[in-house]
Amino acid sequence: MTDLINRQYYLASRPVGKPDASHVPYRDVAVSEPAPGEVVLRNLYISLDPAIRGWMGDDPNYIEPIALGNAVRSSVLGRVVASNSPDFAPGDVAMTMGAWERYTTVPAAALNKLDESAGIPLSLFLGVLGPTGLTAYFGLLDVGRPKAGETVLVSAAAGAVGSVVGQIAKMRGCRVVGMAGSDDKCRWLRDVLGFDAVINYKTCGDYGAAIRGACPAGVDVYFDNVGGEILDATLLCLNKFARVAVCGWISTYNVPDAPGPKNLWQLVAESVTLQGFTVLDYLERFGEGIAQLAQWVMAGDISYREEIVDGLDNVLPTFLRLFDGSNQGKLIIRLPED
Amino acid sequence: MTDLINRQYYLASRPVGKPDASHVPYRDVAVSEPAPGEVVLRNLYISLDPAIRGWMGDDPNYIEPIALGNAVRSSVLGRVVASNSPDFAPGDVAMTMGAWERYTTVPAAALNKLDESAGIPLSLFLGVLGPTGLTAYFGLLDVGRPKAGETVLVSAAAGAVGSVVGQIAKMRGCRVVGMAGSDDKCRWLRDVLGFDAVINYKTCGDYGAAIRGACPAGVDVYFDNVGGEILDATLLCLNKFARVAVCGWISTYNVPDAPGPKNLWQLVAESVTLQGFTVLDYLERFGEGIAQLAQWVMAGDISYREEIVDGLDNVLPTFLRLFDGSNQGKLIIRLPED
Repeated sequence: MTDLINRQYYLASRPVGKPDASHVPYRDVAVSEPAPGEVVLRNLYISLDPAIRGWMGDDPNYIEPIALGNAVRSSVLGRVVASNSPDFAPGDVAMTMGAWERYTTVPAAALNKLDESAGIPLSLFLGVLGPTGLTAYFGLLDVGRPKAGETVLVSAAAGAVGSVVGQIAKMRGCRVVGMAGSDDKCRWLRDVLGFDAVINYKTCGDYGAAIRGACPAGVDVYFDNVGGEILDATLLCLNKFARVAVCGWISTYNVPDAPGPKNLWQLVAESVTLQGFTVLDYLERFGEGIAQLAQWVMAGDISYREEIVDGLDNVLPTFLRLFDGSNQGKLIIRLPED
Repeated sequence: MTDLINRQYYLASRPVGKPDASHVPYRDVAVSEPAPGEVVLRNLYISLDPAIRGWMGDDPNYIEPIALGNAVRSSVLGRVVASNSPDFAPGDVAMTMGAWERYTTVPAAALNKLDESAGIPLSLFLGVLGPTGLTAYFGLLDVGRPKAGETVLVSAAAGAVGSVVGQIAKMRGCRVVGMAGSDDKCRWLRDVLGFDAVINYKTCGDYGAAIRGACPAGVDVYFDNVGGEILDATLLCLNKFARVAVCGWISTYNVPDAPGPKNLWQLVAESVTLQGFTVLDYLERFGEGIAQLAQWVMAGDISYREEIVDGLDNVLPTFLRLFDGSNQGKLIIRLPED
């Protein structure tokens, strides 16, 4: 037994609609000595991602749900405080799939060691150089397959994934149109990231008219982060042989029995491909993706926003900001070192 | 003016639900002399296909609707009775996109001349060696992309498209499971065509349980002719990286405001591709497809059923049989030569 106390936010019951503290309470438990091969991380950063809401559900057909009573699963980045593995020593910094907790204990094989000496801010490994940047990279290039001159529409375009999608599409010579939920976000997309057109979906009125206006030549690639009515409207604006990269459907996650898209017949009418993916499909190519993203970030070709909130006890209200769109870029909880 | 009288079934109003004689009445009109470059066909066979129901609708986003007042668009095969083109002479046999009518007048460039001397029954060029066979060939091989050992599920499997899909998938070394609407159809699929398993969707009860039972290793390729509840059930049975080839959704064509699939989130959960297509996407490869299909048919590797109904005046009630599933294979109207 170490003398460390682990605060954990765990799934006590499955939410229908928005989760609150009754679904995700906390507990303080002692941290055990690591078993052979195990390592204990003191978490420094916890990544907040829309997918976590899906894991709180109980549909066994969805991505593996979090078991009731378990801490809420999340990507974390931390410093090793105890190791029973020859591969890690106290002080090392590493990432893993951990949880909304102060200390995460995992087998050494589940850790990715990070090199602090390169001077890259560690939080970037949870964002633009981590899962969200890689999701954008593989989702756009391998699923969306944009060609120069084509029109690429991105929803949740100011988010951690969408903003990188748009910037890569610009580098590929596409006309890039972003949808976001505030004038400030839209300004950032247009003025800083160089999007060709932007749509504030909260004020634009009819989605179809707004999309047709911003995409006069139609949509060749739709990178879909939101689903729902925006997907339905976009289906009617797709060009022949368009590709829809389905990254996630955040607009539906807190809506029980959300209806399916009504205009899916467009798939046949325009010979469209609708393809779902997750970043884990590209695990064996992460090295390629991180190297390319790091080069773009260091050259200033990719800008990013992070919103870092201090304090583990802010984890649930901060997470919920993903669903009202009030966050600005990659959302991360920081647990300052003692 | 020729002295020929053309009976035409035309679209007088757009049906909601099943079309009847008030939507599709007939008229008798004189056949004009062909203009320069035009050819007049005396139709011998008219192809009845589910897609025609879509063309009767008015949604401009769907495949080009039939204009009100125009004869109902349909593939036809006929004999030239008048030609104002050096490329065709009376007596030639040709196919084209014509209509539910006795005589079709089109530019010579829109005609595909057929060679009667090969002894192939002409009706096959509207079916297994024509649009439906080609839809099966390209839809399965290019969109479904089955690999040996994978499980291929086909709905409307006893239909003109589905029956060819299943037989090609068998030749590719797949486990093939067909869904059809009668025990007779299911017996034909299993005993004559060699399907590995069959499901009578009208008597099987819960679709999901039936599909899981017939596909114990899950579904890798779903060739979807029906949409609706069978698509929704199948989405929950798909394997990682499964492909859904969306050929058509016959279950929804007569249902106004049919809801979208509820389980589409499976696209992300299992990284599934849902791809719509039409046979016209492969126009430049029709020669390849027809040659391969003809070789298989002549070698006995592909069996087919045709149901040929005599008489133009039977066209509408015969067409409606596509939607209650009472036809057996490719449905064709024959207009016997005078």
